[in-house]
Amino acid sequence: MQKVKIGIVGGTGYTGVELLRLLANHPQAEVCVITSRSEAGQRVADMFPNLRGHYDLAFSEPNMENLKACDLVFFATPHGVAMSQTPELIAAGVRVIDLAADFRLTDLAVWEKWYDMKHTCPEVMSEVVYGLPEVFREQIKQAKVIANPGCYPTAVQLGFQPLLAAGLVDTGFLVADGKSGVSGAGRGAKVGSLSAEVSESFKAYGVSGHRHAPEIAEGLTRMTQGQPVNLTFVPHLVPMIRGIEATLYAKLTLPKTQAELQALFEDCYRDEPFVDVMPAGSLPDTKMVKGSNMCRMAVYVPAGGDTVVVTSVIDNLVKGAAGQAIQNMNIMFALPERMGLEQVALLP
Amino acid sequence: MQKVKIGIVGGTGYTGVELLRLLANHPQAEVCVITSRSEAGQRVADMFPNLRGHYDLAFSEPNMENLKACDLVFFATPHGVAMSQTPELIAAGVRVIDLAADFRLTDLAVWEKWYDMKHTCPEVMSEVVYGLPEVFREQIKQAKVIANPGCYPTAVQLGFQPLLAAGLVDTGFLVADGKSGVSGAGRGAKVGSLSAEVSESFKAYGVSGHRHAPEIAEGLTRMTQGQPVNLTFVPHLVPMIRGIEATLYAKLTLPKTQAELQALFEDCYRDEPFVDVMPAGSLPDTKMVKGSNMCRMAVYVPAGGDTVVVTSVIDNLVKGAAGQAIQNMNIMFALPERMGLEQVALLP
Amino acid sequence: MQKVKIGIVGGTGYTGVELLRLLANHPQAEVCVITSRSEAGQRVADMFPNLRGHYDLAFSEPNMENLKACDLVFFATPHGVAMSQTPELIAAGVRVIDLAADFRLTDLAVWEKWYDMKHTCPEVMSEVVYGLPEVFREQIKQAKVIANPGCYPTAVQLGFQPLLAAGLVDTGFLVADGKSGVSGAGRGAKVGSLSAEVSESFKAYGVSGHRHAPEIAEGLTRMTQGQPVNLTFVPHLVPMIRGIEATLYAKLTLPKTQAELQALFEDCYRDEPFVDVMPAGSLPDTKMVKGSNMCRMAVYVPAGGDTVVVTSVIDNLVKGAAGQAIQNMNIMFALPERMGLEQVALLP
Amino acid sequence: MQKVKIGIVGGTGYTGVELLRLLANHPQAEVCVITSRSEAGQRVADMFPNLRGHYDLAFSEPNMENLKACDLVFFATPHGVAMSQTPELIAAGVRVIDLAADFRLTDLAVWEKWYDMKHTCPEVMSEVVYGLPEVFREQIKQAKVIANPGCYPTAVQLGFQPLLAAGLVDTGFLVADGKSGVSGAGRGAKVGSLSAEVSESFKAYGVSGHRHAPEIAEGLTRMTQGQPVNLTFVPHLVPMIRGIEATLYAKLTLPKTQAELQALFEDCYRDEPFVDVMPAGSLPDTKMVKGSNMCRMAVYVPAGGDTVVVTSVIDNLVKGAAGQAIQNMNIMFALPERMGLEQVALLP
Repeated sequence: MQKVKIGIVGGTGYTGVELLRLLANHPQAEVCVITSRSEAGQRVADMFPNLRGHYDLAFSEPNMENLKACDLVFFATPHGVAMSQTPELIAAGVRVIDLAADFRLTDLAVWEKWYDMKHTCPEVMSEVVYGLPEVFREQIKQAKVIANPGCYPTAVQLGFQPLLAAGLVDTGFLVADGKSGVSGAGRGAKVGSLSAEVSESFKAYGVSGHRHAPEIAEGLTRMTQGQPVNLTFVPHLVPMIRGIEATLYAKLTLPKTQAELQALFEDCYRDEPFVDVMPAGSLPDTKMVKGSNMCRMAVYVPAGGDTVVVTSVIDNLVKGAAGQAIQNMNIMFALPERMGLEQVALLP
Repeated sequence: MQKVKIGIVGGTGYTGVELLRLLANHPQAEVCVITSRSEAGQRVADMFPNLRGHYDLAFSEPNMENLKACDLVFFATPHGVAMSQTPELIAAGVRVIDLAADFRLTDLAVWEKWYDMKHTCPEVMSEVVYGLPEVFREQIKQAKVIANPGCYPTAVQLGFQPLLAAGLVDTGFLVADGKSGVSGAGRGAKVGSLSAEVSESFKAYGVSGHRHAPEIAEGLTRMTQGQPVNLTFVPHLVPMIRGIEATLYAKLTLPKTQAELQALFEDCYRDEPFVDVMPAGSLPDTKMVKGSNMCRMAVYVPAGGDTVVVTSVIDNLVKGAAGQAIQNMNIMFALPERMGLEQVALLP
Repeated sequence: MQKVKIGIVGGTGYTGVELLRLLANHPQAEVCVITSRSEAGQRVADMFPNLRGHYDLAFSEPNMENLKACDLVFFATPHGVAMSQTPELIAAGVRVIDLAADFRLTDLAVWEKWYDMKHTCPEVMSEVVYGLPEVFREQIKQAKVIANPGCYPTAVQLGFQPLLAAGLVDTGFLVADGKSGVSGAGRGAKVGSLSAEVSESFKAYGVSGHRHAPEIAEGLTRMTQGQPVNLTFVPHLVPMIRGIEATLYAKLTLPKTQAELQALFEDCYRDEPFVDVMPAGSLPDTKMVKGSNMCRMAVYVPAGGDTVVVTSVIDNLVKGAAGQAIQNMNIMFALPERMGLEQVALLP
Repeated sequence: MQKVKIGIVGGTGYTGVELLRLLANHPQAEVCVITSRSEAGQRVADMFPNLRGHYDLAFSEPNMENLKACDLVFFATPHGVAMSQTPELIAAGVRVIDLAADFRLTDLAVWEKWYDMKHTCPEVMSEVVYGLPEVFREQIKQAKVIANPGCYPTAVQLGFQPLLAAGLVDTGFLVADGKSGVSGAGRGAKVGSLSAEVSESFKAYGVSGHRHAPEIAEGLTRMTQGQPVNLTFVPHLVPMIRGIEATLYAKLTLPKTQAELQALFEDCYRDEPFVDVMPAGSLPDTKMVKGSNMCRMAVYVPAGGDTVVVTSVIDNLVKGAAGQAIQNMNIMFALPERMGLEQVALLP
């Protein structure tokens, strides 16, 4: 069987190096080209020394012909880049997975408001599938373009899904309290991301509004068969490198015991390779998924009341970005879904 | 003016060393005796080398006569100790501040359930004042016994107070998502508190129920003039040493703009020496209060909807424990409330 | 080809869970039995949730017959255990890799002094090979018992080897300044390993003497063809989970340029799969090896003087423990040396 | 008594905010002006919220007349700024403390090589005193200009001083292995200082040469009465915010016991308010000095051999920068040396 020929656009950020880490040991993937205008000519292993011994590849100038020779192109770029190149790539039969936000919202007016630019290829949107395999696996198989979900949206949607699908909670007041490690802020040089600023501190940010909120809201609305969803989402910055935890709060519309909800969640995710419902009475830490593609979660009804609490953890760079992108690739190319994603989380 | 003669019972934990740190530079306090059965004879500066040059004091065997010679005794002990010694101390005219939980709940049946022991001095409860100065300053002045509030309860109550006092929110579904640094787990040797376990990880804990929940609920109920409060409180562990952040969610029962709520909060805390409402549009980090007795907070109405979000930060060992205890001491002994508590937070 | 049947004695510490992490994806290894007196009956994945989905195995009571049915037994125990069971195992034809210190020193009098116990199987020492593949690969192939090197000794010996083998430095005053992450202190509950104690702090420890010093000294002496070595070794504790860095200082006995030493180091390690000499002018960080079996190093002659400085980094749990043990297993069982050890370091 | 009127030039970096933190509670200091071209008009408490409630002061445009109205000007600027303004200030009778490097080296040719610029006021050098009070207290009293020592140089010089002053070690091969927290890299936005880059990693840097090496070498040479010193200095980056540890290695030229060296060190620093020789058998952590102006150290002769090891810790922003500057101010203005510098280190 021939390996999937892969192009990566961008790749100088944390999502890019994580793609390279995971693809290095994927038995059916071959990274043929990686482009970066600013780093053209530099070997990827010189920029990211963890890759020494794994890649001889160098960054090259962006070149559409090289990308067209690939089977699949990952965009690990700031938003705005993927939408400028995707039409030409899919016309050439190349499939696209965008790890940025260009294709994540179906409502382009909302997209343009939050991302503050014109969307340049509305005509492509009909080819786009939102790449959350636990919800859209069948559609992903045939998709030409995958909108790889954001990190918070992955953790939050997977945590709410069993409750919303079963119609058990009041959708009029959902709360998602999200927490992310600092790698989520990317590899850009900003004072606010300096170690001396971020270490030994914790804060909420984006309280007045965050780009992931409309993405989550769209996703949750799909799960309710269109019933309107009123979500309050507050992200927080945790002084650690990797990991997202989302604590979700909702009001039960029907009385349910914790045991019933445990069973509901286990049923919902029984066959999912990358969602793990923790045993009753236990709770997930982000370190249980560090470096792995797993989402682990637990569900509680504190004091047997009418509030349900879900806590859901992922590695933001893996299940929240590069790992989920490879999971999507596996599905698109009819490879075993776990292939190349069997990494055990690093503990301690 | 004579200095306040102070005894400390316990003092080998983080709350104890923090009391010593703050009292070292308090111009009107003199630590006369510090007791510890396990460490009797050891100099405090040998156990906590940051105190070298500041104290010659050694831990001594517990001895009631020495404590009775003090004006004030702090209990920095596990729960259960303060209630066993307080009756004799107050009978001798000594005032007591308990940094543990012995006197925090007025409903002793609830207390006994959560702390799993018999309460041994119910008759003392009428002398107890809950030591949250922003609510009970007048009562604290005359109190014989202060129940020094828990760390989470301090951050959560101060954050909700303006909303509840003004009757603006639905008390039937309040959410407090709390996050604490690891010093909150104390100085006991537990695998779960090891650096290799805790660093680079984040988790929810105590989701099914936490001892601070009934303390917070009692406090919030007092603010609503007895209206019942339905609070969901979920604590989380942050990989940092000091700091608590609480993100609070409530549904507005009347439409309010963010500007109106900003004004409400500023009015509420205008004269408070240790509560700081951040300027509109900004957000507090825990590093803005590290080592200081300040509580800083911000209030938001995301997307102009019907949900209000408050984020409130304190240093769990200062405003959440030792600093608040000294603030209470200052009030009890008619000293300037800020005395000995002017430390600027350590940044970075 | 049949898989290597593996037994693990101990395995409830960080070395044990790291062995399990690495063996989970080793194509020619099968963990058949893992023993722990204290945890017998517990599933390994319940104790270490990163292993959920990778192992069904449970800890079992120590049982010699089960171990004798294995091809290889790893001891991931405190020192003293391996020497009590190894004679019976090798008599039964089972090969042994001890990750503790029981067989690391050839001078048993020195061993007994540092480890404060009687060595119980001196007769086995003739079957022991010191498991540093870069020095003893040929002997490892046939060894019945492997003394898996300590973490500091691995980083220090690999860093000094090219210089000592070439006879370029004064062996009368060698300095090794070592730094280790906190996982090196193990999973035992000690106040000194608490996150609140260790985070945001740095210290030297064991300055008056450390058990790894005689192990390093023996190893270095072997490299000098018996010339006496005077080494000063000072370990330090770094507030991070994984990683060792060793900065080595020696006086050149012959003038050498940096370029000459760069070439010497590159020649020395050209064919080594797990030693990487960084390009001239660059320096290794421990994050470049986190989770991987690589040792990366650089050599400098500051200001062109007569002092040579080497900096060498490893992951203490991988190349400094479990990874090197598997590397030794691969060599002993004629498997490709890299098998199961291709993990790319986790960055960031 | 009149307060010392203070101007600060710069002050938007970590050294600046630390000066403001310490001066906020100094009873005899008044910060009258703080300049910053880029931040003119912004209140210091808006930039550094830990200062909220402590300062109303705003950054102002640089203006020589305002500075001339001060008694003392601190330069908390990049190198090159202080030397451009100092001649005019001292001509006006204002005293100067430069926290940068402009006046640290007496050999200006060496200075120009390392700082890669022309020194613009060689004529001022005769008015400069190197501000290490433990060596130059008498000269500091009268100095017009203080070159405030670098952070590494402070820790290293204080650690070596007793040995060099007593002539006990071979000055031909001194080793200083230095480790610094990340605040030492400043508040500039650089990829290499990002939290995701720096956390959970440790590295040597500047091995081929570091600007602090000539400063240390000059200082050590003064202690040997001019005997040439051959120092190898290697700095390392520690994943923590504050703190420097220096481990120093030297060869004894005369046999000395550990007890003799302990006595030597204690005698040397007996009367120093900010140097603390730890009790025999103990070792300092950087956390024992966090936020305080203390330098704590220990001396060892490992295994009773001929190598002496000193470990010395400071807070790089306090004794390594702003605290030492205020200590110098106190000496210059005949204030008690400890004034405003009694902070107890923050532990945990």
